Amino acid sequence: MSDSPAGVVDLLGVLAYAELTAFLRLADDAATLAPTLTDRAALSGVAAAEYAHFRLLRDRLSWLGVDPEQAMEPFVASLDDWHAQTRPGNWLEALVKAYVGTGIAGDFYREAARRVDPDTRKLVNEVLAEEVRSEFVVERVRAALAENPRLTGKLALWARRMVGEALSQGHRLAAARPDLALLLVSTAPAADAAFADEEDQDGRDAAADLVEIGRLFARLTEQHGRRMAALGLVPGP
Amino acid sequence: MSDSPAGVVDLLGVLAYAELTAFLRLADDAATLAPTLTDRAALSGVAAAEYAHFRLLRDRLSWLGVDPEQAMEPFVASLDDWHAQTRPGNWLEALVKAYVGTGIAGDFYREAARRVDPDTRKLVNEVLAEEVRSEFVVERVRAALAENPRLTGKLALWARRMVGEALSQGHRLAAARPDLALLLVSTAPAADAAFADEEDQDGRDAAADLVEIGRLFARLTEQHGRRMAALGLVPGP
Repeated sequence: MSDSPAGVVDLLGVLAYAELTAFLRLADDAATLAPTLTDRAALSGVAAAEYAHFRLLRDRLSWLGVDPEQAMEPFVASLDDWHAQTRPGNWLEALVKAYVGTGIAGDFYREAARRVDPDTRKLVNEVLAEEVRSEFVVERVRAALAENPRLTGKLALWARRMVGEALSQGHRLAAARPDLALLLVSTAPAADAAFADEEDQDGRDAAADLVEIGRLFARLTEQHGRRMAALGLVPGP
Repeated sequence: MSDSPAGVVDLLGVLAYAELTAFLRLADDAATLAPTLTDRAALSGVAAAEYAHFRLLRDRLSWLGVDPEQAMEPFVASLDDWHAQTRPGNWLEALVKAYVGTGIAGDFYREAARRVDPDTRKLVNEVLAEEVRSEFVVERVRAALAENPRLTGKLALWARRMVGEALSQGHRLAAARPDLALLLVSTAPAADAAFADEEDQDGRDAAADLVEIGRLFARLTEQHGRRMAALGLVPGP
């Protein structure tokens, strides 16, 4: 078991459900929105990769002696709502969602993983590696924008909406799952994260937390900007 | 390239599209019909395995110098129709479809693979191995029937409908793709299958073909009966 069981189980649980539901939503987008069989197969490949990730996380939860279904349950409503609010209306929106929406969610999980035990961190980072998904999506979106540059504004707006919804659901989750939230904003180093509650009672430095939150958002914004530039939705650095 | 390019390409094409579309339909069933997260994850696992199969077939088509999309295209309408006619209305129907429907389709592909080159045959048999899917589905269906034996008749009828639709689409495909049909019923041994058309002109033995068709149906019926018994939908042997 890790130093911070509740936070670790929450992190693995939310990420497991995120991967399982991403798998199912991407498969649905592939089935209903792909313009060609080749595109359908390519997005299906992204979906199938998400399932492989889910399996790694589920197996880790089982190995920790935790029922995966119970670990995922607290996050079902938030993640289902996020998907309901960001249902793509066409193929390009589906691609941008697969890249930008999944990307920003991944950044949150990666941030949380900075404060868990090394084994969990390694697993989370492995699961979040984006290389496979990136190449295909970036190529397709850039080609579409090159052909019709007027799509840029609309898709950039779509991306912004997904990020807004992600922040809103993230806020909701943080309120409901303090152990998970502590992984994101605690100033305590990894090994002490489990005791952060007690430190709080001892008068933890609230100003340091605010600085840390500021840094967190700076990192998230930077990563998001990098993805938007990769797709050609904002000017590159 | 194989001895029988057209038949082999058709076999790989129909099977590739069958796997891709099975992946997407199973994912949809998992998303919409699974009663628990654990069930959803389990059927998602069956779906993800289908995608892995699809990839093997697509890569083989590319390796043969064939565009996978072109190889799949002739079979899209038939397979989509089969799925439209056999859309499960509930979780148990989804499970029976995953086992019986996919099973009978697999038997056809396996029969066709008897008459292609050894490399293709090996790939097809590898793709069709059913072990993973079987265990989970059989267990769930048997448990449901033990709890409510009155479901047996209804599910047996559902299974029969799927087989009927499969035979109907198989018939349609055989008429449209003679190279594929020849793989199923030709009396010519594997290496000569490519020349079956010419043999036909030389007066091929129609009686021998009828015997062969009879044997084919006997094998298909036997395999189907075995699956129905495994699920508890007919008395076992």
